[in-house]
Amino acid sequence: MTDLGERAAALDAADPLAGFRDRFALPEGVTYLDGNSLGALPRETAGRVARTVQAEWGEGLIRSWNSAGWIEAPARLGAKVARLIGAGADEVVVADSTSANLFKLLSAALDLDARHRVILSEPGNFPTDLYVAQGLAATRPGVEVRTLPRDGIVAAAGPDTVLLLTHVHYKTGERFDMAAVTRAARDRGSVVVWDLSHSVGAVELDLAGAGAELAVGCGYKYLNGGPGAPAFLYAARDIQPRLRSPLTGWMGHAAPFAFGDDYAPAPGIARFLCGTPPILGMAALEAGLDLFLEAARAAGSAALWAKSARLCELFIEAVETGSPEPMLVSPRDATARGSHVSFAHPQAHAVVQALIERGIIGDFRAPDVMRFGFAPLYNTHAEAVAAGEAVADVLASGTWDEPRFHQRAAVT
Amino acid sequence: MTDLGERAAALDAADPLAGFRDRFALPEGVTYLDGNSLGALPRETAGRVARTVQAEWGEGLIRSWNSAGWIEAPARLGAKVARLIGAGADEVVVADSTSANLFKLLSAALDLDARHRVILSEPGNFPTDLYVAQGLAATRPGVEVRTLPRDGIVAAAGPDTVLLLTHVHYKTGERFDMAAVTRAARDRGSVVVWDLSHSVGAVELDLAGAGAELAVGCGYKYLNGGPGAPAFLYAARDIQPRLRSPLTGWMGHAAPFAFGDDYAPAPGIARFLCGTPPILGMAALEAGLDLFLEAARAAGSAALWAKSARLCELFIEAVETGSPEPMLVSPRDATARGSHVSFAHPQAHAVVQALIERGIIGDFRAPDVMRFGFAPLYNTHAEAVAAGEAVADVLASGTWDEPRFHQRAAVT
Repeated sequence: MTDLGERAAALDAADPLAGFRDRFALPEGVTYLDGNSLGALPRETAGRVARTVQAEWGEGLIRSWNSAGWIEAPARLGAKVARLIGAGADEVVVADSTSANLFKLLSAALDLDARHRVILSEPGNFPTDLYVAQGLAATRPGVEVRTLPRDGIVAAAGPDTVLLLTHVHYKTGERFDMAAVTRAARDRGSVVVWDLSHSVGAVELDLAGAGAELAVGCGYKYLNGGPGAPAFLYAARDIQPRLRSPLTGWMGHAAPFAFGDDYAPAPGIARFLCGTPPILGMAALEAGLDLFLEAARAAGSAALWAKSARLCELFIEAVETGSPEPMLVSPRDATARGSHVSFAHPQAHAVVQALIERGIIGDFRAPDVMRFGFAPLYNTHAEAVAAGEAVADVLASGTWDEPRFHQRAAVT
Repeated sequence: MTDLGERAAALDAADPLAGFRDRFALPEGVTYLDGNSLGALPRETAGRVARTVQAEWGEGLIRSWNSAGWIEAPARLGAKVARLIGAGADEVVVADSTSANLFKLLSAALDLDARHRVILSEPGNFPTDLYVAQGLAATRPGVEVRTLPRDGIVAAAGPDTVLLLTHVHYKTGERFDMAAVTRAARDRGSVVVWDLSHSVGAVELDLAGAGAELAVGCGYKYLNGGPGAPAFLYAARDIQPRLRSPLTGWMGHAAPFAFGDDYAPAPGIARFLCGTPPILGMAALEAGLDLFLEAARAAGSAALWAKSARLCELFIEAVETGSPEPMLVSPRDATARGSHVSFAHPQAHAVVQALIERGIIGDFRAPDVMRFGFAPLYNTHAEAVAAGEAVADVLASGTWDEPRFHQRAAVT
């Protein structure tokens, strides 16, 4: 074992979160470093989903909307997400997809001030964020989407601007200073819509402390909610009465079961609900959230974020010790990074494929980035080191020469 | 056994669909007449969902987007829905909720013609349809929502009008003549968005034959897709290139995995996808669709729709034979009706509760309607007659005197 391997083994032995790895049904022989794309399956989830299908749907039928608490699921799960992001229980709902929630909040943000004419983001932001902004702008005469390099965005904001920022960049792992950016944007008369998809469950979040007003996030990455899990939407309590959702489905109505003809928004965050909640997806996400909250209670949430940082650091050290070749794309400073690490290399695609053959699953992002996500609940320090050493070994051995596989699709 | 009961028994004995009842996990002692609100659980579904959770998510992890066909689910399920509604495989996708899909199509329909300024519907349409139209209009200066009684709607349409019509009315069961209305609307220069939520799996649908251009529908009613199942969206092939979705999430992009900054719509119906598809909900809906298609193959789809009509007729006859009191709200003519039957009675709420105590689950719609849905795949002729006789018996016995329960919520 290398020195680094020994350090990792000692860290695992002392890890207060070590016991949580066995709460996941990870396949044998696989080192899974793609939880930033699709989180792993908590063991509890299969039973939870089966109960929802068989007892709640099969036996309870329509009655389960009340008796099994289905109708409260968007608010109940929202309150659980709230505890992970530093928000109040009445400031978050779980609903729809991240993309749909972005549309709702960008539309509501535009309507907050008649002067709003620009949605400002960065080039290379996660594509759906830019696409949703563009689609919304296409239906709003006079509204345009602009992009600027991330360092210049806030300085360019003004009272005509809605900022659309992804807190942790999906590809590079760069993290904005949420409190500083929110304050600066507000000082300039702007409002920020934050995308937390690559932050929630990965790094510390304190939306209330940062003064954040609007945010969305993903349920299927570090929250381990399952493929296509419902997403969440946050709006600060004070601003809620001034927000108008464009997607005014019945679940966001003040009295959805009065079946009246005229829309009236629900008083609080529930106005951002739209259609009937996807109950099977909700059941799986709730199991993921419950496990995360259990870990936060057991070890303290600071231990979660510290472990994320440590896993990334060990991985970087192992790669760089073994090979000078690949270039670190992610910030070296953990406070400026998420919980994934990217390296650039001309043969990144082939390297990722060679690693997959060795049972190490990371992913490739065009044109030359290999990306590895570290989940504090189930990845070990030993895995981080072994994976980093494997990257270096693949590069040294030249087994990355040939792109033998073609990646048809990947979901970040 | 009454004469009617004997007739029903004979019809069950000769029913080519009789074997499909056992393919559902219906609870003991329950007559379920609320499949128009939430369809029953197909036995196959639990295993299908468990496989998706354990093998596909747990073992396959991120790889299952390709290896388990997750990424193709919206199109694959869309093609299955297409066979039930008389559409082409490339004209339907499964995605999001009915409400979100209505928003997409109404927005796209408004944008089809610069003259479009009015969304015209009927008062008392299913609330989410009206709410979604109102929310969309609120973001579109100059666009308004108008309602007119259903008999006068088409005559009031013109080149400035998008019609929003629910094919089978959620409360009364009244059915529009889709071909006639579509033709008349087109003759007047209008376009129709059809909501098929209470038609699909309930009555014959031939969208191509009717010349229908745009439609949405629900997955969790007669398709038995489970609580909050994903919905579907139909757009006729010819019109697709002219349609612009306002919800331009990455899954509707021409090249979602190229991660480019600029939105470009997918060439066909896929442009109406938005966020990452909800895979657990998709798995359950696919099991429901497969069972429906199996029944249509086994007995012929004409047998399905004929059985729906017969179940409703037997129920109406049983109620009216036993009691002169309740007033039939639904059309007596099966060709003008869906597969649910509503009666009005001043004590409708208490009657529905008394029936539930006898194990017969229908539902109540304010202020005075009791509503009973008949699913051709799992309801029997004997159930229809026994339920009708129970309605009459409850009325005769006066056990409906006291509203003992308060219905907190119900999802139609």
